[in-house]
Amino acid sequence: MDLLEGIYSRRSIRSYSGQPVDRALLLEMVRAGTWAPSGLNNQPWRFVIIQDAGWRRRLAQFTHYGQIIEAASACIAVFIDREAMYNEIKDYQAIGACVQNMLLAAHALGLGAVWLGEILKSSAEVRTLLALPENFELMAVVAVGYPEAQNQQVSHRREVAEVLLKEF
Amino acid sequence: MDLLEGIYSRRSIRSYSGQPVDRALLLEMVRAGTWAPSGLNNQPWRFVIIQDAGWRRRLAQFTHYGQIIEAASACIAVFIDREAMYNEIKDYQAIGACVQNMLLAAHALGLGAVWLGEILKSSAEVRTLLALPENFELMAVVAVGYPEAQNQQVSHRREVAEVLLKEF
Repeated sequence: MDLLEGIYSRRSIRSYSGQPVDRALLLEMVRAGTWAPSGLNNQPWRFVIIQDAGWRRRLAQFTHYGQIIEAASACIAVFIDREAMYNEIKDYQAIGACVQNMLLAAHALGLGAVWLGEILKSSAEVRTLLALPENFELMAVVAVGYPEAQNQQVSHRREVAEVLLKEF
Repeated sequence: MDLLEGIYSRRSIRSYSGQPVDRALLLEMVRAGTWAPSGLNNQPWRFVIIQDAGWRRRLAQFTHYGQIIEAASACIAVFIDREAMYNEIKDYQAIGACVQNMLLAAHALGLGAVWLGEILKSSAEVRTLLALPENFELMAVVAVGYPEAQNQQVSHRREVAEVLLKEF
């Protein structure tokens, strides 16, 4: 898939065919995530892959969008290692760059994915569920599966002229 | 350029040939940035394009890495509109996804770019220099130019096995 075309054609996919996703593809998404840039190259991202339906059901209870987690073939929970952090704003930005790489990789691999953020309200509960030490803080859950159908999702963005404040 | 290949081959480029970068390519980078996902699709990113050498010199004084800003053909300053924000962590992540799209787009367009974050220590001064209202907060400066040479920059990342905490 062409890079620019991929950036423009990626959509949040919330309905899945049910076809299982090979673990190798999930690892490729994680690998793509790790190739994001980070301040001082501190790579503060950590990942938990959840394919098992029972574990997805347990995770699903912590968000209003639990149905997506249950319908997906897998979820990748993205954590930040607070011990690896050096600057809140820049580290959160690095996580965002990492998740974007994961979403783009999913798209390039023919998968559909969606970035779930509402679950952060239950950040501590998710950490406890997954039995992770306190230095790991939930940053996002990416739900993944094969897209249900080829119906093109519609999405909108402001025109460049609207978000370009000035030019010098 | 292939999407996955682009993710893995992108490097921070800090030396430039001096060949001017067409404004259309800078706008393409901004456009790619706007196609990042954001929570509630709030698109909190705003941009200032700085091609003029005098203005780049003025900007350069606010960071230890000013030489890169002066050597580049252009800079794109990325701001967040605090009035468009809804959640600090998620909005900073969205900015990170936006900047990553910009860097990947630059790479796909044959340009070299680097994400400058150290300048955030002078966030208020940069806002004042560019005469922007207080609701705009500097998030990053992306320096852009044609890469000086085709010498492959080396970069390292932790192996997936190192950052994958658990699997279920």
